[in-house]
Amino acid sequence: MLTTVSKYLDQHADRFLEELKEFLRIPTVSADPECKPHLIRGAEFVYKQLADLGMKAEIVPTAGHPIVYAEWLGAPGAPTVMVYGHYDVQPPDPLDLWTTPPFEPTVRDGKLYARGATDDKGQVFTHIKSAEAWLKTVGKLPVNLKYVIEGEEEVGSRNLEDFLAARKESLSCDVAVVSDTSQYAPNQPAITYGLRGILAVEVTVTGPKKDLHSGVFGGAVMNPATGLARMIASLHDDHGRVRIPGFYDAVQPLSDAERQQFLDLNFDEAAFKAELGISEVFGEEGFTTLERRWARPTCEVNGLVSGYTGVGPKTIVPSKATVKITCRLVPTQDPHQLTEALHQYLKAQCPPSLSFEFTSYHGCPAFVFDPNSPYIEAAAEAIREAWGVQQVRLIREGGSIPVVQTFKDVLGVDTLLLGWGQNTDNLHSPNEHFSIADFHRGTKASASLWAKLAAMQGDGSAASAANVC
Amino acid sequence: MLTTVSKYLDQHADRFLEELKEFLRIPTVSADPECKPHLIRGAEFVYKQLADLGMKAEIVPTAGHPIVYAEWLGAPGAPTVMVYGHYDVQPPDPLDLWTTPPFEPTVRDGKLYARGATDDKGQVFTHIKSAEAWLKTVGKLPVNLKYVIEGEEEVGSRNLEDFLAARKESLSCDVAVVSDTSQYAPNQPAITYGLRGILAVEVTVTGPKKDLHSGVFGGAVMNPATGLARMIASLHDDHGRVRIPGFYDAVQPLSDAERQQFLDLNFDEAAFKAELGISEVFGEEGFTTLERRWARPTCEVNGLVSGYTGVGPKTIVPSKATVKITCRLVPTQDPHQLTEALHQYLKAQCPPSLSFEFTSYHGCPAFVFDPNSPYIEAAAEAIREAWGVQQVRLIREGGSIPVVQTFKDVLGVDTLLLGWGQNTDNLHSPNEHFSIADFHRGTKASASLWAKLAAMQGDGSAASAANVC
Repeated sequence: MLTTVSKYLDQHADRFLEELKEFLRIPTVSADPECKPHLIRGAEFVYKQLADLGMKAEIVPTAGHPIVYAEWLGAPGAPTVMVYGHYDVQPPDPLDLWTTPPFEPTVRDGKLYARGATDDKGQVFTHIKSAEAWLKTVGKLPVNLKYVIEGEEEVGSRNLEDFLAARKESLSCDVAVVSDTSQYAPNQPAITYGLRGILAVEVTVTGPKKDLHSGVFGGAVMNPATGLARMIASLHDDHGRVRIPGFYDAVQPLSDAERQQFLDLNFDEAAFKAELGISEVFGEEGFTTLERRWARPTCEVNGLVSGYTGVGPKTIVPSKATVKITCRLVPTQDPHQLTEALHQYLKAQCPPSLSFEFTSYHGCPAFVFDPNSPYIEAAAEAIREAWGVQQVRLIREGGSIPVVQTFKDVLGVDTLLLGWGQNTDNLHSPNEHFSIADFHRGTKASASLWAKLAAMQGDGSAASAANVC
Repeated sequence: MLTTVSKYLDQHADRFLEELKEFLRIPTVSADPECKPHLIRGAEFVYKQLADLGMKAEIVPTAGHPIVYAEWLGAPGAPTVMVYGHYDVQPPDPLDLWTTPPFEPTVRDGKLYARGATDDKGQVFTHIKSAEAWLKTVGKLPVNLKYVIEGEEEVGSRNLEDFLAARKESLSCDVAVVSDTSQYAPNQPAITYGLRGILAVEVTVTGPKKDLHSGVFGGAVMNPATGLARMIASLHDDHGRVRIPGFYDAVQPLSDAERQQFLDLNFDEAAFKAELGISEVFGEEGFTTLERRWARPTCEVNGLVSGYTGVGPKTIVPSKATVKITCRLVPTQDPHQLTEALHQYLKAQCPPSLSFEFTSYHGCPAFVFDPNSPYIEAAAEAIREAWGVQQVRLIREGGSIPVVQTFKDVLGVDTLLLGWGQNTDNLHSPNEHFSIADFHRGTKASASLWAKLAAMQGDGSAASAANVC
């Protein structure tokens, strides 16, 4: 990377942080209908950032929250890179567990605390600031850039696919870049070559049409909370295996080489348990913790509610009970097919005296990238330079970025998953944060990446992956 | 009953209703710490009602909410009756299911809607207004009256027993009267001769110290919601029987005579199902619905919460999960012993990777009154007169009034359970209400009861129970 670009990034680091704080102050909770106006403000913030760089930018309305699109196409003959990210965030609750309020960004111990700090506002912002550095110093970028920054990633990217399909031609590109994953560990930057898929559903069972006095009626009607608990209990066997019929049919087993590669990462289970505050790990029998997290499918309860949840006792039989469930999927499980299998299985487990209501949210299949791609080596070089390390880890991730599959399906491109954060950054939890040093290094790696991709050999074959592990 | 007393009750019926509304406007939710000032206002309201009748009244502070005590002892040689009731109410949520706000009493179709309308403000108020009628017309009562109106019935009457024990001598009486139960059906007034006992607990299981991203960590840690669901599922077998070891050991089986007596009530199961909006009844195999409600023990989930319960999906593994459970008990199950059995059973079912926290709330054993008592006949006569019916039903109740056992233990007296409401009055549910006609008849029956108890023969043996069924 040119020294002038690098110097610009150093000189303006404090301002970038202040601008990121401004971004984080907007409560862009896409799941909360009341936040709709804030989502619009979030889109406007992103739009202004990109338009102010002289890019052709627009806020594209959708049936849900808008998508911000911008492009800079001043490098004819150079590769075209699509940067994807999202300006929406997870709900912040439980609020009482935040040390400082989720939408009042606060720096403590070199970390910036706020909902969205790492997922994904802080990370996507690096790719905007890296472009600024090139444009304000060199006056141009070494590659063509197309930005797609959406506002519905946390609720399943409901309108993105339509947007991509409608603009398929104008969005044509060589590769996509997404920073919405993590490093392997502090100062061990990584490229993520595999992601799990997901399906998300909600089930409500209803018994009596209203809450009943548990003395007057208890014992004579099916209790929906008990009924739902029995249904949830039926989801796993005693060995941690999911009991939905056909659930494992399409699971691609890990190769011996891949299992060995996971082992070589020397995963520190004691540190993991200490970090999470658990006495024991738990999961599907016969698999290591990294395998369970990265390469095995799951069925998890995300939320559960029934009856009285306030202070003290309340002697009722609840009218209804609701559970939110997500399954993480691995190649080659099909989210639609398994959503239906889950639906049928839970319906069959539902006690006959309860009514059963099933809602399916979003789904996407798992994704595994070719680790020998020249794009990966270009990205690894940029990261080595920015972090000053010898090795860039090649890892998988348990999370899902549904759009990666969509990019492959609709635009025919692979995606570089470049994580600047840590998986201990409390993404989706209270006290989410992002290391300011990682934010800065991420911005530098992004600026370098544009140059490395521009310098990449045509067929990519000469780029060695020797230093990637 | 004297005509003047009866006439007074008719003439002042509208004012009584207005005063009851005033009582109901005070949100005396004993489970909610924020309502503490309102509990004090509730006690003051009751105090003023009784003091204004010239009774010696006081507000007795306790470690929790105060107890109102008042007495009128101007009938030497006549029986002494203790009236017990409570001015506290159940929490009103879910608020959105109330047609009109719970603490804005509203009359619709001859019914007064408000939290506490029937449980127990409306019912206890009848015994205050009946005394007023005697005192304002005759100038005296036919019996001696002692009122104990507490503010913690809905949270387990935590401080009542100490109060009773401390004042054991001055509270001496011949019988207690409580109106906190129901008629058998509209215009089928009843005396309740049996109640179930109760135990109430709360269990929280905790896994990771914070909510985790279900992609990054899912599959590798025990999910507390899943763990708790498995624990709840283990509470019952497939035949609706409770699986806590020893749970049924002390259960007194119903006699054939009693089972027949229940059958003779011609319980309308179709109407019951329609009323509750359920397609099927459900419960312990081998028992009828009335048996399940009145004479069989239960283990019910009252509330359940874990993780994200807002709108839409949230991809987390929750940190903790909580369940509230109450068991209804029958003679001669011991609440303390079974609380401990439940504790040990659930602890044993708790997955080892979750931490287990158990809280015990209140408990009381079941109670069965001697149906041949002369007090029952005196009460039945008063009710027949007020309702203008031939028969007063003799029933049991599935609910618990823990103090009934305390009265027996501490004061050595039996309790007349005279229910003026309906079990369809939505007690403990949204849209709780009390028929204004029942309120009026209840007040008349109470006024009559004082005369019938005064006229009762010394040994009670001559009072026929022929019309009680």
